[in-house]
Amino acid sequence: MTAGRDFRDVVASKRDGQELSDEDVRDFVLAYARGEVGDELAAAFLMAAYINGLSPAETAALTEAMVGSGSTLPLAGVSRPKVDKHSTGGVGDGVTLVLAPLAASLGLAVTKLSGRGLGHTGGTLDKLESIPGLRTDLSTEELERQVEEIGCAVAAQTKELVPADGKLYALREATATVSSVPLIAASVMSKKLAVGSDLILLDVKWGSGAFMKTPRAARDLADACLGLASAAGRPLRVAVSDMSQPLGRAVGNALEVAEAIAVLKGEATGRLWELTGVFAAEALVILQGLGPEEARKEVDRAVESGEALGAMASMIRSQGGDPAVVERPRDVLPRAPVVREVPAPNEGWLAATDAEALGRAGVGLGAGRIRKGDPVDPAVGFEFVPNIGDRLESGQPLAVIHARDDDAAERARREIEAAVHITDDPVEPPALVSEWLGRAE
Amino acid sequence: MTAGRDFRDVVASKRDGQELSDEDVRDFVLAYARGEVGDELAAAFLMAAYINGLSPAETAALTEAMVGSGSTLPLAGVSRPKVDKHSTGGVGDGVTLVLAPLAASLGLAVTKLSGRGLGHTGGTLDKLESIPGLRTDLSTEELERQVEEIGCAVAAQTKELVPADGKLYALREATATVSSVPLIAASVMSKKLAVGSDLILLDVKWGSGAFMKTPRAARDLADACLGLASAAGRPLRVAVSDMSQPLGRAVGNALEVAEAIAVLKGEATGRLWELTGVFAAEALVILQGLGPEEARKEVDRAVESGEALGAMASMIRSQGGDPAVVERPRDVLPRAPVVREVPAPNEGWLAATDAEALGRAGVGLGAGRIRKGDPVDPAVGFEFVPNIGDRLESGQPLAVIHARDDDAAERARREIEAAVHITDDPVEPPALVSEWLGRAE
Repeated sequence: MTAGRDFRDVVASKRDGQELSDEDVRDFVLAYARGEVGDELAAAFLMAAYINGLSPAETAALTEAMVGSGSTLPLAGVSRPKVDKHSTGGVGDGVTLVLAPLAASLGLAVTKLSGRGLGHTGGTLDKLESIPGLRTDLSTEELERQVEEIGCAVAAQTKELVPADGKLYALREATATVSSVPLIAASVMSKKLAVGSDLILLDVKWGSGAFMKTPRAARDLADACLGLASAAGRPLRVAVSDMSQPLGRAVGNALEVAEAIAVLKGEATGRLWELTGVFAAEALVILQGLGPEEARKEVDRAVESGEALGAMASMIRSQGGDPAVVERPRDVLPRAPVVREVPAPNEGWLAATDAEALGRAGVGLGAGRIRKGDPVDPAVGFEFVPNIGDRLESGQPLAVIHARDDDAAERARREIEAAVHITDDPVEPPALVSEWLGRAE
Repeated sequence: MTAGRDFRDVVASKRDGQELSDEDVRDFVLAYARGEVGDELAAAFLMAAYINGLSPAETAALTEAMVGSGSTLPLAGVSRPKVDKHSTGGVGDGVTLVLAPLAASLGLAVTKLSGRGLGHTGGTLDKLESIPGLRTDLSTEELERQVEEIGCAVAAQTKELVPADGKLYALREATATVSSVPLIAASVMSKKLAVGSDLILLDVKWGSGAFMKTPRAARDLADACLGLASAAGRPLRVAVSDMSQPLGRAVGNALEVAEAIAVLKGEATGRLWELTGVFAAEALVILQGLGPEEARKEVDRAVESGEALGAMASMIRSQGGDPAVVERPRDVLPRAPVVREVPAPNEGWLAATDAEALGRAGVGLGAGRIRKGDPVDPAVGFEFVPNIGDRLESGQPLAVIHARDDDAAERARREIEAAVHITDDPVEPPALVSEWLGRAE
């Protein structure tokens, strides 16, 4: 139907601020995915869409076409209620590592298809792969069987799933068209809609370490995603959450696994636990019909009983990793040779952090990658100790750096010091979840 | 200085509506010309420039960078006053074929570097090459020698001249970013500024057969070109002229050469002669200091004396063509086997023509090309007889078609009939030149 079609008229319409028909959007995107539309015309389209915007209907058509560009993963073989969770990306954001086994221990299923870290935010695959032996290249059959048996799996997204998204995302990276709300929403939601689930939980972050720098931008993205879920008839709840500081204490792959294990043991009760608990309870309310308080009690019980930690061990074992890591993380996980404390440079209250700069300090240590395909060092990173609003005495630890060598540690120390703002007056800590959006169905 | 530079920030600035520095524009364009910036990022830039516009300073920097992307042709070896003429493209626009020898016979030098026709407008090279034996691939040395001796030459633009324009133009074609005033102005003027001249005459056309459909759009383009000439310190005069009907009677390559010869013999005195005479007189006023009336007399004298026709013959001979064509055009030029008159379908006044459709009718006969590299048939085309405002009786000739076969003639007949609008009331003919813009220096 579209063979040999000249798509320049579609691009010209978007260029001139017109709304495209669903069919035009779909035909264009699918032709691009098939290689019938070249990168240069697609780049012109992306820039026109960036500047002139995309209507909710255009964004829905784009998302649908992206889903249709490849195969989907209905997870029909999974009988438990399925919850999918996605974060727009932050620093020290280990929610998935905690939520997947926690939800599994509560009778839910979490099938997390993830990517690798890029830029200042880490990737769940990189984190999990710091566990010796663990593999993430699960086949569809392995994935479904594991989720049915254990309740959770974290695996690499295959090339067959939403290939148009991968292609368009790389083109947006190359053409300064990444930071567009409808394009981001279509990218996020196409990956969620391609996988079977009974509930999608979305964590839209805002602040110095997030792609969305203001609550308004985060709210816009949340609204766009809700529109897409609604158009697809899929239940979605969105938390708009704080990323003005690292979510967990740990920034770095093995360090974040160790922190996730500590959370599952009930030993770490900071923001990472707080946010994960909120998501898990929300899922129980919606998928198992519990009241909010009852749900919260169930969540706490799963940790106290050790069941959540047990699900983590089962998942790691099933994916080829050493399950002893949950008992003796320091012995099993790789450790960096240089460990160095960064004292607070002066006394006062921690008023703000440049969380993106903290993420980049982690990348500088080797924990992340600047370009696709770069290797990451699983052992390095740092723990960032205080929370915004905390009182710091001079010399009190601000961070503990885990580095490959002294030079790297010293660079990271300077970067971490430069990324904090300490004031003489008390500061109110920011709300972790500023709002919940969406609807139960 | 720009090696390895990431130019996405330049594109992001244009995307966000900021004005780029001269240096950023220049570095970006030169990096694109060298292949260091890819087509996809350049396409995103073009779309951002199309939608958000380019300031006069940005357009000047773009133009300058395009000139600087290749070699220039100063024509230092030409001692006559040098005039360069360019049209934004129209149907039946054979001004160059007449003006070059006419100006040469008046003591001026015209070095016309031209391209091939594309779409509904013809190309001067295609027209001239309908003369058997004539070649247009002149070397720089041949070109300069011929212009110094004879006063005129029409040759193919070399790849070394303004290569960034060729590359950007092809990308604009592919990305729906052609019809932008600053991008068109930069493209037109870069080619003019790269060639030495004492005066540039620009014919900006508007109407149904022009790229600019309204006088306002033509005026905007004229103003942009004047700004670029001024920024480069080069004298430019711009005529805004009518393209609501074919300029000459002939549409087609050999037919237009035959018409140009008839004009130079004083036998054809329609709009083509009128416009060419106006340009030639303007050049004499500016370059030789004549008064307007004196200049006009000189122009008429050059035709009456046969000197203009003689210059045409000399140019054709010098470029390898058969100069007998100026005496016996019907014998020397290729002729189409089918010649068929199109009678006016009804009586009335010719109120309007769809000149672009008439141009496409010529392309349909084989006189032009849809894609670069397509062959053209030199013999085919048509003569369009009446002018807007003329009274037509039913059955009176509207056009004379020269076709390769009956089917092609019939198709063209239908297209020509559909492209004219005949009314019951008298119609005022449009002004040929609606305004002159620019300044003498």
